[in-house]
Amino acid sequence: MTDAIVRELRAVLGPDQVLASPADRVTYSYDATYLSHLPDVVVFPASTEQVRHVLAVARAHRVPVFPRGSGTGLSGGSVPLGGIALVMTRMNRILEIDRDNMLARVQAGVITAHLQETVRAQGLFYPPDPGSARISTIGGNVAENAGGPRSFHYGTTGRYVLGLEVVLADGTVLKTGGMTTKNVTGYDLTSLFVGSEGTLGIVTEVTLRLLPPPPPARGTLVASFADLTALGRAIGALAAHPARPTSLEMVDRHCLAVVEAHRPPEIPPGVAGALLCEVLDWPEALAGRLRALEEVCRGVGAVAVSGLADAGAQRRIWAMREALSPAVARIKPTKISEDATVPIAAIPA
Amino acid sequence: MTDAIVRELRAVLGPDQVLASPADRVTYSYDATYLSHLPDVVVFPASTEQVRHVLAVARAHRVPVFPRGSGTGLSGGSVPLGGIALVMTRMNRILEIDRDNMLARVQAGVITAHLQETVRAQGLFYPPDPGSARISTIGGNVAENAGGPRSFHYGTTGRYVLGLEVVLADGTVLKTGGMTTKNVTGYDLTSLFVGSEGTLGIVTEVTLRLLPPPPPARGTLVASFADLTALGRAIGALAAHPARPTSLEMVDRHCLAVVEAHRPPEIPPGVAGALLCEVLDWPEALAGRLRALEEVCRGVGAVAVSGLADAGAQRRIWAMREALSPAVARIKPTKISEDATVPIAAIPA
Repeated sequence: MTDAIVRELRAVLGPDQVLASPADRVTYSYDATYLSHLPDVVVFPASTEQVRHVLAVARAHRVPVFPRGSGTGLSGGSVPLGGIALVMTRMNRILEIDRDNMLARVQAGVITAHLQETVRAQGLFYPPDPGSARISTIGGNVAENAGGPRSFHYGTTGRYVLGLEVVLADGTVLKTGGMTTKNVTGYDLTSLFVGSEGTLGIVTEVTLRLLPPPPPARGTLVASFADLTALGRAIGALAAHPARPTSLEMVDRHCLAVVEAHRPPEIPPGVAGALLCEVLDWPEALAGRLRALEEVCRGVGAVAVSGLADAGAQRRIWAMREALSPAVARIKPTKISEDATVPIAAIPA
Repeated sequence: MTDAIVRELRAVLGPDQVLASPADRVTYSYDATYLSHLPDVVVFPASTEQVRHVLAVARAHRVPVFPRGSGTGLSGGSVPLGGIALVMTRMNRILEIDRDNMLARVQAGVITAHLQETVRAQGLFYPPDPGSARISTIGGNVAENAGGPRSFHYGTTGRYVLGLEVVLADGTVLKTGGMTTKNVTGYDLTSLFVGSEGTLGIVTEVTLRLLPPPPPARGTLVASFADLTALGRAIGALAAHPARPTSLEMVDRHCLAVVEAHRPPEIPPGVAGALLCEVLDWPEALAGRLRALEEVCRGVGAVAVSGLADAGAQRRIWAMREALSPAVARIKPTKISEDATVPIAAIPA
């Protein structure tokens, strides 16, 4: 049966865009979890029409289809269970940056960082910044409703999705949403596809809301704690304060141990963990806001707090944070990346 | 048939909570549009269980049900077409303000302003502020995905809905969503009910995300224009600027004419219209931000621009804006309130 499917898919997509060798199937058998299943065949459509053809072949042969972008997800959403692995990375064109309406229309396979940079060059801002932004695709971000540290302030990917083009299992090409901020007419089908992990249809195009650039001054608060309960209380207090940071990251003593050589002087040795807060604001307001957040952290028992406005010191801090993940991966026996979400009040315990 | 329905409904809800006189039916026959249709009967359930009973009676008699709050909507979402007008205003309890998790759990009939004030008293902030906030219910805000001037910055009601309790037509009580900011597991059924105007089920309880209070300093920018095209261009330029205001209102020459006695000195006589922008920020940053927005407006040809930080001057401006709607209603022959949404680039033309 697989031979027939491969033949039919090749007739439509071209021979190079349909792979069935064991090596190719293994390549598209996993994502960033430890889940893995071989697909029977791997296809690379170049257009919405080709996606429709793939679904038509799948329908005719009653074979499941598993859409994916770069496979950086942490939930198994792009892991196939046999069938067709449908890889969207060839559909990687930014179709339109509409400055007047502050939106971008892109194919699902566009790399997130590529969109971020293109938009920035035009004086606008695409806030979602998942950890995998340099590799992940917008379509994957939509399918997983990707977050990232900035989602603390800016929300997850879904908040920026104004509309979608989706190919349904029966071949229907559905267009959802609109191009206005207050787009409240009719059922919100867009949100139904966001986070659905490819199970409801294949997202081929995405219309994204853009924002003006954030205020230009950047500050970083580094707060260290002797115990994790106090650190947890600080997260709740920072989240509820009017000066709430733009993003918030936590590192514990085990993480600090593996990057000891890069530990910045703002984090004293031997602490249980530290919070790194990014604050974006106007130059006039930055120092006052960092001071307010310092007080919040001291109020819940931080053993050391530094508000940094100096660019060099901030670079050191965030370089340490970025070095963490590869450094942890280097120690044995393995690294498990979780993408946990808990209610604020459950953090201190 | 109506007699039997009224009898069954009274048996469950009590005789005072089921109204069928002509006057009562007229009272619940309209919303803030000019649409109007008489319901056959009006019911006031006091609990989710009573809502289920109403739906059971409706099901047994194959009679349609039209849920409503205070009826301030501008889309006809709560106008009945015969059948049962189900009025949610008795389910008006704030069930929980969870400060640690920054959320509120409320019954659908809670008045929006009541929630705003209760939350503010606890040092938190519920951003949605539809024009009808002093009358409208949270359930109605959810059903219509209500906006208001602050939605320019804070988004519409839906952004704050974390979860819902909904009674479906078959009597099922569905609980959607969760209590975390990044709540991305499973299909987003919550968003499907938001904006569905009561057509998919009866929302009985709403869990809302709260924010920290906004920065404490308030400024207002008043920019006047000799023609509406320039005013429209200013809206686009303000929306795309990093100093983007928190809310934005426009008044044209016809509106200004009816409140001429209250026209503030910042708006010169004879202009085509004016923009009122609210800016919330830290005291240190306010003046600079107002200046930046002033420059934006001058750059597109404003004939007068004032950045106001003085509380008295701001009160005058916003009092004028609030006087507009009743003042317009007083002139003949009638007033039509539209709730239009257009793409930014379509505004200047």
